[in-house]
Amino acid sequence: MTELNGLDTDELSGLIDAAADDPEQASFTSRAETEWTGGFESETTIGDFEQAGTTVESPEFTVTGDEPEALLGERNGPNAVEHLLAAVGSCLSVTYAGHAAGKGIEIDGLRFEFEGDIDLRGFLGLSDEVRPGYEDIRTTVHLESDADDEELRELHEEVLETSPVYDNVTNSVSLDFDLQFE
Amino acid sequence: MTELNGLDTDELSGLIDAAADDPEQASFTSRAETEWTGGFESETTIGDFEQAGTTVESPEFTVTGDEPEALLGERNGPNAVEHLLAAVGSCLSVTYAGHAAGKGIEIDGLRFEFEGDIDLRGFLGLSDEVRPGYEDIRTTVHLESDADDEELRELHEEVLETSPVYDNVTNSVSLDFDLQFE
Repeated sequence: MTELNGLDTDELSGLIDAAADDPEQASFTSRAETEWTGGFESETTIGDFEQAGTTVESPEFTVTGDEPEALLGERNGPNAVEHLLAAVGSCLSVTYAGHAAGKGIEIDGLRFEFEGDIDLRGFLGLSDEVRPGYEDIRTTVHLESDADDEELRELHEEVLETSPVYDNVTNSVSLDFDLQFE
Repeated sequence: MTELNGLDTDELSGLIDAAADDPEQASFTSRAETEWTGGFESETTIGDFEQAGTTVESPEFTVTGDEPEALLGERNGPNAVEHLLAAVGSCLSVTYAGHAAGKGIEIDGLRFEFEGDIDLRGFLGLSDEVRPGYEDIRTTVHLESDADDEELRELHEEVLETSPVYDNVTNSVSLDFDLQFE
């Protein structure tokens, strides 16, 4: 076994070959269920998912969302826009580690700092000219590696082309709703 | 104090009036820091934020991201695209609860089911024609309320116009990168 960035590079090659040989093996469906628990708090449950149409069992995880007191919550967890930054950070980490391993680049350390500005008048319905979400997200990437800067810039460009959450956030993805009034 | 959906409606009106009177009070900056911890695992730390340019202290929360074993992780947490669904679910919960309270609608129960399909060939860099992220996200909204269906449909439309994460996901938001190679 050859390990790079904490990943077994034989397994990584195997994953890529399996998806290239049989695209169905690359087909995943994620699931999540969010329950509103009163006020501005919610619990999202995440567990099983599907690969190639078959359910893959998983331990169940709970993600708590809540607003800070300044926004009428009890701050029992990060709020939704902070969870969005966590999703982006988690995705960039995975994409950096995986693609660096694929290119033979050893990463010694990797850390992201995110900042996003929100004008709450959008959420509060006070202005049609203010978008409800972040205007932009500022990201500082601290990347430790012996690879030269040009290789690392190429790695960064590859990450931007292949990161799932980066794609969904910087491009649009539609939500289709089935409204069940009970 | 009048309470609706677990929210103090006087405080809610106060929040809206304060933002209308002084838009600076509606200006928030979120922060998050993600550290790659090896393989496909990361830890995102979320705590203090800024309102009107002033730091607001907060307890610190940690969000773990990891891939399932099928994707070479150890499944110590949800993966990034599952965290994205949690961010969307948390945001829709907050926006429903808040806007329903604003409209005088009592919500007796609210639950969202999400499903998103990913073709991993995008992440793996196997095809330029496959987007890395979700193609679309299917959402079932289970909403219990005595309000009539027309009011609830209006509420839903208002939620879509004002939810921050719904905005950022269904429209695009840019990420600006400062690359620090160390």
